[in-house]
Amino acid sequence: MDDVRIETIQDRVGQVVTLRGWLAARRSSGKIHFLQVRDGTGVIQCVMVRSQVSDDEFQAADHCPQESSVEVGGTVRADPRSPIGYEVDVTSFRVVHESEPYPITPKEHGTAFLMEHRHLWIRSRRQHAILRVRASLIKAIRDYFDSHGFLLVDTPILTPAACEGTTTLFELGYFGDRAFLTQSGQLYNEATAAAFGKVYCFGPTFRAEKSKTRRHLTEFWMVEPEMAFCDFEQNMAVAEDFLVSIVARVLDERRRELEVLERDTRPLEAVRKPFPRLHYEEAVRLLHENGSDLQSGDDFGGDDETILTRLFDRPIMVHRFPAAVKAFYMKRDPDDPRYALGVDVLAPEGYGEVIGGGQREDDLETLRAAIRAHGLPEEAFRWYVDLRRYGSFPHSGFGLGVERTLAWICGLPHVRETIPFPRMLEKIWP
Amino acid sequence: MDDVRIETIQDRVGQVVTLRGWLAARRSSGKIHFLQVRDGTGVIQCVMVRSQVSDDEFQAADHCPQESSVEVGGTVRADPRSPIGYEVDVTSFRVVHESEPYPITPKEHGTAFLMEHRHLWIRSRRQHAILRVRASLIKAIRDYFDSHGFLLVDTPILTPAACEGTTTLFELGYFGDRAFLTQSGQLYNEATAAAFGKVYCFGPTFRAEKSKTRRHLTEFWMVEPEMAFCDFEQNMAVAEDFLVSIVARVLDERRRELEVLERDTRPLEAVRKPFPRLHYEEAVRLLHENGSDLQSGDDFGGDDETILTRLFDRPIMVHRFPAAVKAFYMKRDPDDPRYALGVDVLAPEGYGEVIGGGQREDDLETLRAAIRAHGLPEEAFRWYVDLRRYGSFPHSGFGLGVERTLAWICGLPHVRETIPFPRMLEKIWP
Repeated sequence: MDDVRIETIQDRVGQVVTLRGWLAARRSSGKIHFLQVRDGTGVIQCVMVRSQVSDDEFQAADHCPQESSVEVGGTVRADPRSPIGYEVDVTSFRVVHESEPYPITPKEHGTAFLMEHRHLWIRSRRQHAILRVRASLIKAIRDYFDSHGFLLVDTPILTPAACEGTTTLFELGYFGDRAFLTQSGQLYNEATAAAFGKVYCFGPTFRAEKSKTRRHLTEFWMVEPEMAFCDFEQNMAVAEDFLVSIVARVLDERRRELEVLERDTRPLEAVRKPFPRLHYEEAVRLLHENGSDLQSGDDFGGDDETILTRLFDRPIMVHRFPAAVKAFYMKRDPDDPRYALGVDVLAPEGYGEVIGGGQREDDLETLRAAIRAHGLPEEAFRWYVDLRRYGSFPHSGFGLGVERTLAWICGLPHVRETIPFPRMLEKIWP
Repeated sequence: MDDVRIETIQDRVGQVVTLRGWLAARRSSGKIHFLQVRDGTGVIQCVMVRSQVSDDEFQAADHCPQESSVEVGGTVRADPRSPIGYEVDVTSFRVVHESEPYPITPKEHGTAFLMEHRHLWIRSRRQHAILRVRASLIKAIRDYFDSHGFLLVDTPILTPAACEGTTTLFELGYFGDRAFLTQSGQLYNEATAAAFGKVYCFGPTFRAEKSKTRRHLTEFWMVEPEMAFCDFEQNMAVAEDFLVSIVARVLDERRRELEVLERDTRPLEAVRKPFPRLHYEEAVRLLHENGSDLQSGDDFGGDDETILTRLFDRPIMVHRFPAAVKAFYMKRDPDDPRYALGVDVLAPEGYGEVIGGGQREDDLETLRAAIRAHGLPEEAFRWYVDLRRYGSFPHSGFGLGVERTLAWICGLPHVRETIPFPRMLEKIWP
């Protein structure tokens, strides 16, 4: 391990360095090999002139297959023709391990083939860019909450009860008992918000949905803030500020990666406050005007979200959905109890929901009635109901799905490329 | 929601503020109520003088049960007698929700009772301190890797194969197939290290161990860095630097919480480089001299770790365990292939293993033989073996368990208090 890495090569101009990495590509013109070496932080062209190295080294480079691991010594030189601005004049070359013929070649491969080779596909330029944007997005999310008075409080993955119905749950045996993989940390967040005021959890969540769409993963990462003494309007303002902040941060840090992805960044630069706010019925009217046959009272489908978001140049907030289509824990609008104080934030360009949230029911008897009305087991929610017995408090929060947000930011047609090892219906390999 | 929070009350001296929180305790002396109000960021004494509020307000405070949610208005005053240096002179008081009699009282409760009320127990002073230290520890871990050239690359929770044997795996149905909850992201880290050079994953991991000890959780968080072109010695140096760094950071940020926990911080201040490095056989000799009956060749038990770590004033690194007791992917010591290039970092004061790591086998045929020798299904590891076909490279890494590290830093006898909602044998509630 050596700390000379391509991403900081600009600090080494004129110096002799050793790079360790993989041979991404090579072309030769008789007396010169042009070696594209990648080390995980970037790709740099290493120029090997026959007269500057031993015959063995020159021969080794000539026969070295794609993706072989190599150690290249040489002098760093600024070069305006280089896409990264620098090249290396090679003085030594060693093959660490000669690769077998690499299955992923510059020719086009089908998605099924690439997904089957996901452990290798992630080495390629586009996947590399996406996963670097992902790391920045996650850091932007954490930094936002850490710097706004939220405490990270992890919620459990193994849970005894379902948060939003049992049909989409993964179930497993737990020492003779049964357990479910979490769909959301929200219920636990409400307990920790009573302890810490403003909290967030951030971890993997699971939905056993039999959906084979471009928006569904069975395993995905979600961040969920929850705020004590926060009402519905304040919660919408936080969600808006948060989304503006993380998009700006990623634009700032990962412009080069977004270029690799050929993402038109203008729609992202337009993500500014205020986001249009639409009451559910207003959104339904707009949908009907634009060709949707959504039944008033129903929840939106993916197609409805696509239609709606194409009408605006920035994210929109649809609020006050019919209580009947929303989860049992949502507080009803005191001005019209047919509606729940829930909000979805829909990303533009057809991407759809990236945030869902709202105010939680804080009255003991109303909540118990809702649990019964939804046919949920009261015993499983006994601890949750306790939060309304001992110092109940108005509180709100939301959840943002990392992969859908990343698909939007990167401009990807499918979420499967937004996570290193995607899990989907019938897809758990590698 | 109001941004006046107790942790920043020093900025508001002389100002009239509104605090929203819960009544932690109260005492009265005729014309004055002393209200201990907590808002999730701290506890402050609010002094209510009968003549300064309405009769209704004074009466309300007099009858207000512990843990009722309240809204308190008043003027912030510096007070040298206060443990936090400030008090509030109350000018208004409102009960948001009157609590039912709170089950957790200042009297002693048994652990079983407290664990059953974990959703409320986390509001108490000690639990509060532990979970704030936890948040700082996690941030210190992330910041270390983010600032040392590592990229966060998430590894999957749902996996098709076992990393370290199948006896301690949680298994679940996956659309007619079966899947396992991850025990470690390491194998996937090796694939992402080939793509990005230096990576880390950080998420929940699972072990279905039927152990009821003070060191076991079935669900726990682990951070795992992996480094391409990093050998065994370099890996130990990183582990050492990392551990010194995160302990120092937590000491720096959470001294007040460690005081609440009555943690003697001197042993933590002694966590400096270099950590003593002991070959396994050397450690066995020391164990025998100190009363252990460990069979040479066996892995250490918890008691052995306790004996060993009490002999040193700082963490120790035990390296080169017998290959037979270690995982199939460990590289053998080229100087003596009976031993594997694995290292355990043991925390002092009897706490034992907090880090395990080592160099990985990078030779294709040696690895395949090891998979067969361990009786593991070759097909399940096909993708993993691929990493030795296409540009194999020396690489190493390690894993640090958050909860064991936190138990040590906080000086706790049992890991169950180190995570908001612990999962243990026969314990998945609340």
